Amino acid sequence: MKTIGIGLVGSGFMGRSHAHALRAAAGVFGLPLTPSLELLADVNDDVAAKAAKALGFARSTGDWQALIADPAVELVDITAPNVFHKPIALAAIEAGKPVYCEKPLAPNALEAKQMVDAAERKGVKTAVGFNYLKNPMVMLAREIVASGEIGEVISFRGIHAEDYMTDPLAPFTWRLDAAGGHGVVADLGSHIISIARFVVGPIESLVGQLKTVTSRRPVAPGTTEMRAVEVDDEARALVRFATGATGSIEASWVAAGRKMMLAFEVTGSKGTVVVDHERFNELHLYTTGQPHGREGFKTILAGPHHDSYKEFCPAPGHQLGFNDIKTIEVKALITALAGGAPFQPDFREAWEIQRVVDAIVQSAREERWVEVTEV
Amino acid sequence: MKTIGIGLVGSGFMGRSHAHALRAAAGVFGLPLTPSLELLADVNDDVAAKAAKALGFARSTGDWQALIADPAVELVDITAPNVFHKPIALAAIEAGKPVYCEKPLAPNALEAKQMVDAAERKGVKTAVGFNYLKNPMVMLAREIVASGEIGEVISFRGIHAEDYMTDPLAPFTWRLDAAGGHGVVADLGSHIISIARFVVGPIESLVGQLKTVTSRRPVAPGTTEMRAVEVDDEARALVRFATGATGSIEASWVAAGRKMMLAFEVTGSKGTVVVDHERFNELHLYTTGQPHGREGFKTILAGPHHDSYKEFCPAPGHQLGFNDIKTIEVKALITALAGGAPFQPDFREAWEIQRVVDAIVQSAREERWVEVTEV
Amino acid sequence: MKTIGIGLVGSGFMGRSHAHALRAAAGVFGLPLTPSLELLADVNDDVAAKAAKALGFARSTGDWQALIADPAVELVDITAPNVFHKPIALAAIEAGKPVYCEKPLAPNALEAKQMVDAAERKGVKTAVGFNYLKNPMVMLAREIVASGEIGEVISFRGIHAEDYMTDPLAPFTWRLDAAGGHGVVADLGSHIISIARFVVGPIESLVGQLKTVTSRRPVAPGTTEMRAVEVDDEARALVRFATGATGSIEASWVAAGRKMMLAFEVTGSKGTVVVDHERFNELHLYTTGQPHGREGFKTILAGPHHDSYKEFCPAPGHQLGFNDIKTIEVKALITALAGGAPFQPDFREAWEIQRVVDAIVQSAREERWVEVTEV
Amino acid sequence: MKTIGIGLVGSGFMGRSHAHALRAAAGVFGLPLTPSLELLADVNDDVAAKAAKALGFARSTGDWQALIADPAVELVDITAPNVFHKPIALAAIEAGKPVYCEKPLAPNALEAKQMVDAAERKGVKTAVGFNYLKNPMVMLAREIVASGEIGEVISFRGIHAEDYMTDPLAPFTWRLDAAGGHGVVADLGSHIISIARFVVGPIESLVGQLKTVTSRRPVAPGTTEMRAVEVDDEARALVRFATGATGSIEASWVAAGRKMMLAFEVTGSKGTVVVDHERFNELHLYTTGQPHGREGFKTILAGPHHDSYKEFCPAPGHQLGFNDIKTIEVKALITALAGGAPFQPDFREAWEIQRVVDAIVQSAREERWVEVTEV
Repeated sequence: MKTIGIGLVGSGFMGRSHAHALRAAAGVFGLPLTPSLELLADVNDDVAAKAAKALGFARSTGDWQALIADPAVELVDITAPNVFHKPIALAAIEAGKPVYCEKPLAPNALEAKQMVDAAERKGVKTAVGFNYLKNPMVMLAREIVASGEIGEVISFRGIHAEDYMTDPLAPFTWRLDAAGGHGVVADLGSHIISIARFVVGPIESLVGQLKTVTSRRPVAPGTTEMRAVEVDDEARALVRFATGATGSIEASWVAAGRKMMLAFEVTGSKGTVVVDHERFNELHLYTTGQPHGREGFKTILAGPHHDSYKEFCPAPGHQLGFNDIKTIEVKALITALAGGAPFQPDFREAWEIQRVVDAIVQSAREERWVEVTEV
Repeated sequence: MKTIGIGLVGSGFMGRSHAHALRAAAGVFGLPLTPSLELLADVNDDVAAKAAKALGFARSTGDWQALIADPAVELVDITAPNVFHKPIALAAIEAGKPVYCEKPLAPNALEAKQMVDAAERKGVKTAVGFNYLKNPMVMLAREIVASGEIGEVISFRGIHAEDYMTDPLAPFTWRLDAAGGHGVVADLGSHIISIARFVVGPIESLVGQLKTVTSRRPVAPGTTEMRAVEVDDEARALVRFATGATGSIEASWVAAGRKMMLAFEVTGSKGTVVVDHERFNELHLYTTGQPHGREGFKTILAGPHHDSYKEFCPAPGHQLGFNDIKTIEVKALITALAGGAPFQPDFREAWEIQRVVDAIVQSAREERWVEVTEV
Repeated sequence: MKTIGIGLVGSGFMGRSHAHALRAAAGVFGLPLTPSLELLADVNDDVAAKAAKALGFARSTGDWQALIADPAVELVDITAPNVFHKPIALAAIEAGKPVYCEKPLAPNALEAKQMVDAAERKGVKTAVGFNYLKNPMVMLAREIVASGEIGEVISFRGIHAEDYMTDPLAPFTWRLDAAGGHGVVADLGSHIISIARFVVGPIESLVGQLKTVTSRRPVAPGTTEMRAVEVDDEARALVRFATGATGSIEASWVAAGRKMMLAFEVTGSKGTVVVDHERFNELHLYTTGQPHGREGFKTILAGPHHDSYKEFCPAPGHQLGFNDIKTIEVKALITALAGGAPFQPDFREAWEIQRVVDAIVQSAREERWVEVTEV
Repeated sequence: MKTIGIGLVGSGFMGRSHAHALRAAAGVFGLPLTPSLELLADVNDDVAAKAAKALGFARSTGDWQALIADPAVELVDITAPNVFHKPIALAAIEAGKPVYCEKPLAPNALEAKQMVDAAERKGVKTAVGFNYLKNPMVMLAREIVASGEIGEVISFRGIHAEDYMTDPLAPFTWRLDAAGGHGVVADLGSHIISIARFVVGPIESLVGQLKTVTSRRPVAPGTTEMRAVEVDDEARALVRFATGATGSIEASWVAAGRKMMLAFEVTGSKGTVVVDHERFNELHLYTTGQPHGREGFKTILAGPHHDSYKEFCPAPGHQLGFNDIKTIEVKALITALAGGAPFQPDFREAWEIQRVVDAIVQSAREERWVEVTEV
């Protein structure tokens, strides 16, 4: 059984999820290469050692550069805070190693483009963790749109709303650090943008709005020392797609009660598709032309006839979980690394997504419509 | 039993609904004045006679001016196509008779303002049929916001989407006639704008987008002769409220599968309220501070503890219907005419709503942010 | 305009609803006879006078026998407590007047049968207020079953659960008085039984279970004096239909949180239909043979293509309310009285329903399967 | 890192799920023993070899007795067809090895009791795969009931309905073989019975009903040769719990459109809990005593404050999948084998569940109420 050595940088929320998926993918999907969890890097030796043990990595290091240099590491997997994505990825690329990076790729489109150029120059394969694109119901939405089942797309209405920053005393974290990029528009907004592009296509122009709801937060839990917040808590934009379709995109991390509202509605000339990730094993489909008195949205439950489901479970409606989606992502990545279909979204696509993020920010600052190509 | 003589102009969808409500209101609510259905006017004598019979009016006329002049008519109720709202209302005001007019009030804010001025000059009482404001669950949303139960309002996300113009062969109607005003932004958009103002408050500035999806439609059902459509099939805007809250507002009459998606979500610093009129007897409420592991949105079913419900039914969850909402509107209007609390929304409020509609149109045409006071 | 004089006995929950519907039906449906609200009887003159005023009746009386004798009364409408249904109905029948009676018809099947016999002997038209049978979505369920759209019916699973007796201190009322009949099995159970018969057909045999949850209740609100409760708070049965289908039927008035859970699921060999009256403008339909990956339940919203909807509103999804359903019932009744299609359910059908109720009670007491014909 | 050698018998639907869970559990939960996938047995050497490769087992065999004898096998995991559960389990017990067996434990309670006795005599630890008991929302239901949050339990209404046998041409499988036990009452019914016992407690008596909907099925896909079906396609029972609570339990594998309707509602004197596994990351909770006008069911999304969730994901609402539930089961089992809290449900509990299954069958055959202790 051929293996591929994984070096993971970071062991937080997403590091943990990557580890789950890397351990699970070969067993679920019978991959050509089995991920071997070789080395985990974190902020220092102690943290790294503990995380390696918890997540099943063979070795650990407090130095991510050592990880990149390590001959056992054949794939560099980056789940560190956003501000570190670029230096680590560039170093891995420089070392000629494929990179699997969490989103958002970079603090801004310019830096993302530098990462794209570096990777393409070196011919290094790249992957970015927009995991919800691997949800079989999102893939089904794309398939329904692409097949013309709902006619021509007229509009897209999407949002990614959660509530983890609702409490004004929730402390400052790296997500709020402007050095790492924008706020919720990048953190959650990039997910709904990635879906808009995946299902409908490129966004050409937009007008955006950002809002910082809580302008000062404690520097740490329970502290009275405060730090100013420069990034956005809410973001929204009106958009025009290259196809002529229009729509809206929103993001919020202060949406009280919303835990995973990554929801979108694609309206076509002959039907509509709706998905909401608080019930992500469902897709709602309406098509015109149903008999009078029998018209209605259909609730389709994920099942073995949808992409990547049957390897988890042969029975429909039994449901996939969050980590299963990540496992599908790892399958696609390992398949690509073994010479199969190229992985999407790669750095180039992540840059395109980042340009939309940046365009929203620029538009909001300048209070005007912006062409995405301006960014 | 004191009565008030009603003169109804128009007998289409809304005319019929008004008639239901006018017949029902006194019985349901025990009003100080009982509406007496005196006179119905329509495009000609025949149509009017037939409609009067069907809707329970004592007499009929093909001449709305005769209706206004008729001494038995003490309230002029206008449900004619939009383009007629202004001349009829002005004539009624001139005659010193109170006016109950369907929305939108006028083709544009300027004309709406002329109607406001005329009414205020004459001291005539006015009412505009934004009926969903009378849905007890919309009133509950306002009450929850006003009481501070969800803290300070951060944002509002609203839409009114239906699908009656989805078919590109759906023929041209007065709703598409630019002489009567704008398209869906006025027809459905005005409803969600009215709710935004009712629940959150005035909108100060916005940036809008309009789209005509089907640019030519048959002049009549089954005809091949086509007529160009100048008005919008879809509309959306990003908005800023006077309170500092922000949000988005959308409208569509080509949203395949949506029959009555008049839906909104108000996010506050301490909770969230959600209402969707496809299930308009429900309100979803989330508040922060619930015990760990027990957090969740609550589904509140309309019941006798909510405004105007118990007069229809003493038992909760038994549900009100569309015409019941209109009946509540009539109750409020008759109460106001009998000297009770003034009716809202009156012409002035309808003008304010129309200004937001016009601002969206102007913003979309000029592709820039617009202050609502510019209109 | 021909009228029919109505004499209403009782002015509680259902009396009020009947009055709404009687006032509304002619206007909504253009009936051959317009109900004229002539006379209202209640427990004494004062109560009756007040109720007549509130509900729009011309005159009132404290003596229901006077009401039956009154020449202006052409239809006797009985919404008094259950224990009075039989004497009033028999007197009306004796007077040769048609009877419109609330359910349940009688305290038991034997007495119901006496009422059937009396009516049939006299040739008097009868109607019983199982209003949910007039919900267009229940009629649609029957139509779907009858047309074979879901194949042959395999089973039925139904429940009517509410929570108005949940509080153990909720006082004793006439609903709990064994003299008026059984408990929830009659009050709510009869509704779900009526639907089972309407949609699937006659029930042949069953085994039942009853439970009195709160065995003593205050004689009045706030009193400490208690009275023993002899009737059931919960009821359930396994049933066999004449067609060979099987199923279960349940009823509860102590189902905390359930306000109007009159819900049923009909499973056929080729599909399934689901209706729940907490969202009674919806029907959920699944049919086999949908394409792989596109299988799902469809949510059908009530609209103008369904029975009796378009007279209320031409637009789908706008929703009917509780009183609208009663208005449809009145339409059917008035139509029958004017010589149209006979009204169902009449006394005979109500007796059949009562037999099922009694069979559940007998089965529960004797702890054995019971043939409905035994009762 | 200490390991425990796993020998898996069977590699179908559940074998695959066990393999996923066994591979995943140590990584997710940091277990005291890491499952080592040593040996897989199946019907012959070829099938076993192929399955071992696919599911990540080191070795394979066509002889389950060899598996039990294998010194590397420290836990015998049985996912073979039901008819094999008993002989394999008894052999493993005889060999002194702990047993992890899929449900149902045995074809009937008598044989299940023999298995219990054997295990208890030998002091062998046992576990049965009623995985839905490990769903954090089912555990939450039990916790809510046990804590008194909904008062005393009045009743339980449960069902497990799927549709995999709806097609009358679906071929005969081992699930239909009466030698392996009863039909859906055992296959799915046992799940809802296990939940009823877990959440409410022991069932004392019941009356049941079984139905074979399709009495003959093809012996294989596409064949015209038919085989008689002796087992039930639908089952239902009215039950009495030891606590005095009552309720109903249903099961169907011909419920067209239902993919994973394992749903139950527990009604207490002060509230209600509802769970449906088609949305198994949600629990609906109603409690009495909410303020007037604010009463409603709360939708609680699974999150890190619920049992076993946070090890999968720190963020609420992100959802667990079917295999994650099985992984929680494996965690509990491995913990028990390492000396932690005893695993439940063990063979004894599975026997108790089987007694209820058998009591339903006996009651249905004899058409009478049956005490579970009769079985």
